Amino acid sequence: MNEHLQSLIKWIQDEHLDIAYISNPTDINYFSGFYQEPEERVTGLFVFPDQDPFLFTPALSIQEVKRGNWPYDVFGYLDHEDPFALIAKHIKDRKPTALRWGIEKDDLPVFRFEAIMSQFPDATFPADASRYVERAKLIKSPDEIALLEAAGREADMAFTAGFNALKSGITEQAVVAEIEYSLMKKGVMEMSFDTIVQAGKNAANPHGGPEKNQITPGEMVLFDLGTVHEGYISDATRTVAFGKIDDKQKEIHDVCLEANLAAMAAARPGVTAAELDKIARDIITKAGYGEYFNHRLGHGIGTSTHEFPSIMEGNDLVLQPGMCFSIEPGIYIPGFAGVRIEDCVHITADGNEPFTHTTKELQTFTD
Amino acid sequence: MNEHLQSLIKWIQDEHLDIAYISNPTDINYFSGFYQEPEERVTGLFVFPDQDPFLFTPALSIQEVKRGNWPYDVFGYLDHEDPFALIAKHIKDRKPTALRWGIEKDDLPVFRFEAIMSQFPDATFPADASRYVERAKLIKSPDEIALLEAAGREADMAFTAGFNALKSGITEQAVVAEIEYSLMKKGVMEMSFDTIVQAGKNAANPHGGPEKNQITPGEMVLFDLGTVHEGYISDATRTVAFGKIDDKQKEIHDVCLEANLAAMAAARPGVTAAELDKIARDIITKAGYGEYFNHRLGHGIGTSTHEFPSIMEGNDLVLQPGMCFSIEPGIYIPGFAGVRIEDCVHITADGNEPFTHTTKELQTFTD
Repeated sequence: MNEHLQSLIKWIQDEHLDIAYISNPTDINYFSGFYQEPEERVTGLFVFPDQDPFLFTPALSIQEVKRGNWPYDVFGYLDHEDPFALIAKHIKDRKPTALRWGIEKDDLPVFRFEAIMSQFPDATFPADASRYVERAKLIKSPDEIALLEAAGREADMAFTAGFNALKSGITEQAVVAEIEYSLMKKGVMEMSFDTIVQAGKNAANPHGGPEKNQITPGEMVLFDLGTVHEGYISDATRTVAFGKIDDKQKEIHDVCLEANLAAMAAARPGVTAAELDKIARDIITKAGYGEYFNHRLGHGIGTSTHEFPSIMEGNDLVLQPGMCFSIEPGIYIPGFAGVRIEDCVHITADGNEPFTHTTKELQTFTD
Repeated sequence: MNEHLQSLIKWIQDEHLDIAYISNPTDINYFSGFYQEPEERVTGLFVFPDQDPFLFTPALSIQEVKRGNWPYDVFGYLDHEDPFALIAKHIKDRKPTALRWGIEKDDLPVFRFEAIMSQFPDATFPADASRYVERAKLIKSPDEIALLEAAGREADMAFTAGFNALKSGITEQAVVAEIEYSLMKKGVMEMSFDTIVQAGKNAANPHGGPEKNQITPGEMVLFDLGTVHEGYISDATRTVAFGKIDDKQKEIHDVCLEANLAAMAAARPGVTAAELDKIARDIITKAGYGEYFNHRLGHGIGTSTHEFPSIMEGNDLVLQPGMCFSIEPGIYIPGFAGVRIEDCVHITADGNEPFTHTTKELQTFTD
């Protein structure tokens, strides 16, 4: 049995649960090695304190599970069948009275929660498996770090492809096309999120995407991208100059880089997440741009960007070796320009190592 | 106020609700015109029977909302703030006692459900907004059908690019690269799901994806793909021959095509979803391949593939003009080959019209 599943069973035993229902597709993959793209059909992993676990999937996916390494039962259902009636039957075969449940409260929608309650009217839900999974994923193993490094190398390749595509008049979207085509030709088929290329004032919108506007000399261009490598992701940002940029653009890049480097230098065991955020934020605030840095310094990274630790004000979590997260200060001035500089790192015994290595010094590209 | 939002408010009034909380990103877009890629931060649309609605988003997204056409309030939150405490404050400003809630039970995770209950201890949840949205989206307007047609044209372009890329030795993944690059160069930036290209026996796994295996003369190649056009999606499948295929491959293509065409000919107002499924399924069963068609005939399509009507056994819904769904019989013989032939259609006054027009007759490509 794999270590992830072993630890989950130990948690189930410690919490005196009768069953845990893992519903998040990424987490199902983490524990079972089987990944199902999210869809409306029901896929679940059901784990017990003292019985073999089972997977439940659409009938369509049974073959795919069997091609993998899952050594336990997998049960399917057809589209016209009631999945929760079948799930209840398989659970009762193992555990006639499943009273104490652990569910993933961050993931499980109310509709499915109610379906379980209707099959198991006496069930209680004393434990949130989302909180367990967060903690379980917080410290990455050397194997996991090797996969994050591999994903980081793919992000570095993507930056190179993107920088090479820059020319006067090319659209942001066409640069994205060149980046993703270049990766797909190398067999890198999955980006960890929609690739962001934003030029000039578009980059001032930190939640925007690539548009049809043409890149013009004198603009800074922001690239935020990442890939998925065997389930582990990369996420990195660089902001470069296209042609000759003005002093204020240079200044916000300088300030942002200083904030990034100060946080990179400070990230080590013993520092708290909040302290790290403050180190970068103070530099930007002191330079007069504090109001333009309107997000946390970073987020955890691993099988998703939705994990611990969150590097932000109020989080007193002490950094420890094996924690993996982004350091991504940004300055976004509406109507003018935006800069963000981001590496993801893992904490080591006495510091940290980034997963991406593309230079962060201001690079200038021209036609 | 847009018609979608007007209808939602009417539903809220009819159900005597104090508030509806729309949490699904696609649905938020449907009602507000604002789309936020799903992430762990909270975005919500809060709608009242007798007060202006408001959007609640991460602070990062406020600018993006303001660039759009949303004429009402939008409130943001910073990463270190408690989103549900702020949401409660904004709700109480409008509705000091919000007792009767409508929530999207298919979407809202238990954790956020509990956060609402903790802010509004007396709240009840008598209405499932997911069921309302399903019904609201069931009949598409002419404007929506025009967008689905535009998405369908993009899918047809994608087939052409994919067929043109076929050559001996090219990998499934490299064909995907050519398809998506070709679309992105035309500004089509978003696929509605991961593009599927499967050759030979790989196509027998209806939930698999493109792999590194090389396409070889004598194989059938299955293409299942779609795009997103202004929020509306396409989804279509063709299976073609590469080089000379054998009689059994031809036969399963013939049977699948016959099933597809029979369902296309039968889809009109007055037929039920279950009857339509049976028309296609009977043909495949009679030919001896019933056990290899292990999914429903089709799914609703619009802003997602997760919508009504589901074309399957047991669904006695009567088809009506404006309903949009896929017709996609398949035959998957493990270790041998797989065929699926799919168009999405909209029901018209006296029949249906497909959104995709690439020929379904068996096409043969060679080097």
